Amino acid sequence: MHETDAHPTLRIRIVFGDDGMIGPGKAELLERIGRCGSIAAAGREMSMSYKRAWQLIGTLNAMFQEPVVDSTRGGPGGGGAVLTETGRKVLDLYRAFEVEATQAGAGQLEALRAMIRDIPEEK
Amino acid sequence: MHETDAHPTLRIRIVFGDDGMIGPGKAELLERIGRCGSIAAAGREMSMSYKRAWQLIGTLNAMFQEPVVDSTRGGPGGGGAVLTETGRKVLDLYRAFEVEATQAGAGQLEALRAMIRDIPEEK
Repeated sequence: MHETDAHPTLRIRIVFGDDGMIGPGKAELLERIGRCGSIAAAGREMSMSYKRAWQLIGTLNAMFQEPVVDSTRGGPGGGGAVLTETGRKVLDLYRAFEVEATQAGAGQLEALRAMIRDIPEEK
Repeated sequence: MHETDAHPTLRIRIVFGDDGMIGPGKAELLERIGRCGSIAAAGREMSMSYKRAWQLIGTLNAMFQEPVVDSTRGGPGGGGAVLTETGRKVLDLYRAFEVEATQAGAGQLEALRAMIRDIPEEK
């Protein structure tokens, strides 16, 4: 069974003017922070540098009226972090948007998938 | 009036297994080829190199069961190109998906937009 037999997946970026955007990477980072309680550990799970993970969270914290992550302590490997109420809401809205988009556009996605070439071996 | 007062915009990539994806860039390129009848000219309008535009079209042509663009002649600056029936259909489906997603997720988009910080001058 070939990959293209599977449903296509979506990577959605929601862009807010010039000020910021949220996409699959930031959403996944938020999700992992919520799960593992640490920005550094969440970044590691995504093979993301400590610096990069903190940058992304800094961008998100500045982008919304309230911070999305509350980090109690810094330092590589240490420090706890939790999603704020805003952070949970942003993540939930992003995930809900993905679901709505996928359901609403199921006809288009299926029509596109049916037009894809099915090549088992060629590059 | 600040940018974040405007509706957020979407950048959607539809990913088909490991074999390919279509997103905003390829869709815009197809649209411009349909309008200006040339891969090179369409690429120039997007500040894209001749080579890059042809690469993207090559990828799309290989990705679907039928080519998306029919190019009658190559060479920088020359050569005509038209969207095939498949190309028009792929573009239409992608655009229709964007519309469906935006409409279906309007509630989530508006809720996210309302949470964005509104800073007129800060970086």
